[in-house]
Amino acid sequence: VDAVLVACSNLERPYPAIAVEVQDLLGIEGFGFDMNVACSSATFAIQTAYDMLRSGSVDCVLVVDPEICSGHLNFRDRDSHFIFGDVCTAIVLEREETCTAKGAWEILSTRLKTKFSNNIRNNFGFLNRAAPDGIGARDKLFVQEGRKVFKEVVPMVSQLILEHMADEGLDPKDLKRMWLHQANKSMNDFIGRKVLGRDPEPGEQPNILHEYANTSSAGSIIAFSQFSEDLKAGDLGLICSFGAGYSAGNVLVRKRA
Amino acid sequence: VDAVLVACSNLERPYPAIAVEVQDLLGIEGFGFDMNVACSSATFAIQTAYDMLRSGSVDCVLVVDPEICSGHLNFRDRDSHFIFGDVCTAIVLEREETCTAKGAWEILSTRLKTKFSNNIRNNFGFLNRAAPDGIGARDKLFVQEGRKVFKEVVPMVSQLILEHMADEGLDPKDLKRMWLHQANKSMNDFIGRKVLGRDPEPGEQPNILHEYANTSSAGSIIAFSQFSEDLKAGDLGLICSFGAGYSAGNVLVRKRA
Repeated sequence: VDAVLVACSNLERPYPAIAVEVQDLLGIEGFGFDMNVACSSATFAIQTAYDMLRSGSVDCVLVVDPEICSGHLNFRDRDSHFIFGDVCTAIVLEREETCTAKGAWEILSTRLKTKFSNNIRNNFGFLNRAAPDGIGARDKLFVQEGRKVFKEVVPMVSQLILEHMADEGLDPKDLKRMWLHQANKSMNDFIGRKVLGRDPEPGEQPNILHEYANTSSAGSIIAFSQFSEDLKAGDLGLICSFGAGYSAGNVLVRKRA
Repeated sequence: VDAVLVACSNLERPYPAIAVEVQDLLGIEGFGFDMNVACSSATFAIQTAYDMLRSGSVDCVLVVDPEICSGHLNFRDRDSHFIFGDVCTAIVLEREETCTAKGAWEILSTRLKTKFSNNIRNNFGFLNRAAPDGIGARDKLFVQEGRKVFKEVVPMVSQLILEHMADEGLDPKDLKRMWLHQANKSMNDFIGRKVLGRDPEPGEQPNILHEYANTSSAGSIIAFSQFSEDLKAGDLGLICSFGAGYSAGNVLVRKRA
């Protein structure tokens, strides 16, 4: 491993970068940095690692998504705090030529999109120290306009997936499975219907919310990890994240032989 | 511009990513994300953008380093607070074929390195909310063991530069100028001597500390911006950052015709 990317919504501290501590604990030479684009951090880090691999800067990258969502919650806000969970995922990306792992997946292409919105926001940060009476106030923690997010993010994500598939010369029905961001099952059902043009079959877009809750950027990666072993060599799938930013990211993958 | 990277030590908030707000204000389509590896954020973002360009993910990237260092300072710590400044830099990276800017520079190669250390640390973050009596405490703000940093970072950076130059088949005397991280003039003088094997001449590694103070990741970029117009087509130079992590990053550049 030549590089470590720590990509998540809520970083424990500004510096030293958490990635550098992970690198040290695992005895990895090379370099690391932290990145953040909220719930899409994992897919954005996958594209970044994929770019690093293709450019020749590295031969193998570790992407870690430690989502300790409980750190950002307002426990007096009954609408939001109970829906989040804490978890950490890890992904290893390497060159095709060197990959000997059983059940590995190939990245065919990625696509990222961001469009500014304040409907999912968190103001906790240094600049708020200027007004210490605001520490711990509601607007310094996770806040969300759930209905607006639903209405605006569903079409943004559906369009991103449809355009991405079209540009790759693929029909959405070529996808054996979609591992969608795990925040809200109705949102995923809507996206699935828009993309497939019909109700998704059970197993076409697995849900892990009942077990892990909303774990921000880790959600689609957990779904991918838990529901991919049954697929066969050559099967196509799509990891898709979306959330605050707004941000949305696709990783189109194919199971290797 | 297809992508915006906001890379700095102290981000204003976790989300929406600051990069997405910058993108929105400038009317940029595409995507953005925030990244952090303290004082080396700018050079790490340059390599990341360079990887994105070479992989074909994007055609043009904007890298912004807003360093509002005053947000992280303990104003009761006379040893550190007065040495920092607030500033913002911006860099545009694009493909060679499309670049028509006068006085543009070509990236020849980059090199990044991180090695864990707690000698420059900042614990301000979400997880500290668990102990509210610690808010604003010294260990939640910028702290540094200056002498240890000096002793450990100078050899790390000198070695990184010497190895990078050797791997590129270049002698350090081929460098017309080094734009070093702007934290401490004695540190830069030591690094210059180790790299060149003699005292650097005036102008070989310009200093902007007297005017801007330590602006974290922005320092070497300000030095590059202010002291590069006089160089000629074909001239080689090195942008080099270093700091908390420990992190160190080189960008080897050549002035275009």
